Amino acid sequence: MTRVYISSVGMTRFGKREEGLLDLMVEASEKALGELDNCVDALFVGCQNPEELTGLGNISTRLASKIGHTPRPAVRIENSSGTGSAVLMNAFMAVRSGMFESILVVAGEKMTGVSTAKATRVLAEVLGENEREHGLTMTALGAMAARRYMHDFGLSREDLALVPLKNHRNGALNPNAHFQKEVTLEKILESRLIAEPLRLFDIAPISDGAAAALVSSHGGAVEIKGIGAGTESIAVEDRDSLTSLKATVEAGRMAYAMADLGAGDIDVAELHDAFSILELINSEDLGFFPKGESWKALKKGDTQIGGQLPINTSGGLKARGHPVGATGLAQMCEIFWQLTDDAGKRQVDGAKTGLAQNIGGFGCNNVVTILTRC
Amino acid sequence: MTRVYISSVGMTRFGKREEGLLDLMVEASEKALGELDNCVDALFVGCQNPEELTGLGNISTRLASKIGHTPRPAVRIENSSGTGSAVLMNAFMAVRSGMFESILVVAGEKMTGVSTAKATRVLAEVLGENEREHGLTMTALGAMAARRYMHDFGLSREDLALVPLKNHRNGALNPNAHFQKEVTLEKILESRLIAEPLRLFDIAPISDGAAAALVSSHGGAVEIKGIGAGTESIAVEDRDSLTSLKATVEAGRMAYAMADLGAGDIDVAELHDAFSILELINSEDLGFFPKGESWKALKKGDTQIGGQLPINTSGGLKARGHPVGATGLAQMCEIFWQLTDDAGKRQVDGAKTGLAQNIGGFGCNNVVTILTRC
Repeated sequence: MTRVYISSVGMTRFGKREEGLLDLMVEASEKALGELDNCVDALFVGCQNPEELTGLGNISTRLASKIGHTPRPAVRIENSSGTGSAVLMNAFMAVRSGMFESILVVAGEKMTGVSTAKATRVLAEVLGENEREHGLTMTALGAMAARRYMHDFGLSREDLALVPLKNHRNGALNPNAHFQKEVTLEKILESRLIAEPLRLFDIAPISDGAAAALVSSHGGAVEIKGIGAGTESIAVEDRDSLTSLKATVEAGRMAYAMADLGAGDIDVAELHDAFSILELINSEDLGFFPKGESWKALKKGDTQIGGQLPINTSGGLKARGHPVGATGLAQMCEIFWQLTDDAGKRQVDGAKTGLAQNIGGFGCNNVVTILTRC
Repeated sequence: MTRVYISSVGMTRFGKREEGLLDLMVEASEKALGELDNCVDALFVGCQNPEELTGLGNISTRLASKIGHTPRPAVRIENSSGTGSAVLMNAFMAVRSGMFESILVVAGEKMTGVSTAKATRVLAEVLGENEREHGLTMTALGAMAARRYMHDFGLSREDLALVPLKNHRNGALNPNAHFQKEVTLEKILESRLIAEPLRLFDIAPISDGAAAALVSSHGGAVEIKGIGAGTESIAVEDRDSLTSLKATVEAGRMAYAMADLGAGDIDVAELHDAFSILELINSEDLGFFPKGESWKALKKGDTQIGGQLPINTSGGLKARGHPVGATGLAQMCEIFWQLTDDAGKRQVDGAKTGLAQNIGGFGCNNVVTILTRC
């Protein structure tokens, strides 16, 4: 079986950017490849909704044109906010199939070119129809999950705030992060209430940005050792639980089996904390902590840099930012840098195996990727 | 190397349909699989623009939810009007990689739920930005290609009309076609002028519909023997030629090489005739006829059913219809039926090898697939 590597990565700084979508994608590509010297066999592009957020369709061809990739193949992959890892997974399969030896994977989103109201409407298009019609938004669903978790497992509002507290501390060390400053517990707890119990600082921002990776069979510093995906009912009302995502459990099962590794082998992880509560839920779904116990590990400092299992060293979606289609691939950048001792002040000493978990929609199309140092 | 087969196919009737996008996708899936009995490892969904044409995002998860496919993986692929074959190509690679043994591939589009003006605007989002800003539409570009071809190669307006004449004749034999009636040469030549020299009957209609295929390594009646993709500058102004598409030439090169077959081995072909002129251009780019000569073969009857190389036995985009994201996979359905002697009155006797060519955007992201009878 062909082994598949990530040879290099790159990303733009996330945040409110002046540049357009394509320019951000080009910037990330150049950072991953150095010169765009036509060294790849195919271009795989991830973007959640370029049409409604930027007015541009046919985005894979548009980028191929712009970087001089023609006449070679280009394709777009889209799985809502799980796009960035879905495009990596499809590139992984394409290389493993023998069709292509090297693929430039690029994922990006430009969100601040439209009003927050429009962006919110566009994001809500990915929810179940009945739930949308009744006015549910992503954040409302996140709030319901948080309330249920607090009820079932004794999490306090103050302890939930430790997630963004940690992630802002990490983001302050990340030159690519949307927010590069620490915040205080008071600031989080006094921030604007968005959907009870979630406040502004529990919620990832609307960002612009792009990430890129060179995926190939030629070898590289990091191997894609395991990758898996899972789905769950698009409507939250149809699910068994608000505090566990079956799509993550299934994706994790596949990825661990392929890598022949378990939760205990992971040295560093990037988890999809679009809402603070999700970091806790995700870490339990992946087997890092028993159900209902992850917040205790957080409180003990186990998931901070220097702890037993650092989570979201990049700052996570909350502080690094969340240009929806780009997020999953930005997670790979962080894990790559951790595994190549290139994470600067965020470095986890001796990290050999990293895991990234990316969510599409409200937890319904998730990918788990396990990378190992070569 | 794992061999990849199409085990079964299905499609809805194309046309103006009452049903919504998901219902059309379910109908096609049921026709391909019989019972949707959870027999596949993954779901690959193609759709060009569900967000703007139907208001629905996260379409792969939405379909997975609806057909009870969860918790297994689902992904959406999008390459403009080349989506239907791009999704097949990605499923082909996924099966060949060994990640999945069987994949349900579904491609669909619901276009008539919005006004023709809106659909036209949405379709124009895939064009080059400068060309869009100057008011160019898909049809205007098709007209420029037609005018250039007529100038360079002596094609008359009357002979160009032989393309829709043939394709309507074929569509009249296809119970899944949008238009199931023959038209006369007079009707074509007297139809409304849309963009000189193209008239209404030179242009594929706006349609609803979906197609599906079961792709697997378990064997099947038809093998995916070769598949390739190519790109070209998104802006037509940047190209060397109006009468040849480099993306088709490159895709054909890859597909022929993989299949170890040549143009002379093809018994039946489905080509992307979004505009009548494209059928001629495509057939030359694929090496079926010398440059500038394809219309002579058409005039002799070589490309009609019963001729040397029947083209668009389904009726093509013109008569079968063109729900943009579905078209490439509907082409596979037709070739599958031809290779399994299941094409009814359209049957090409003894067809053993078929080719499908699908265009994304205005000729800039194309896929060529070669299927063989097992």
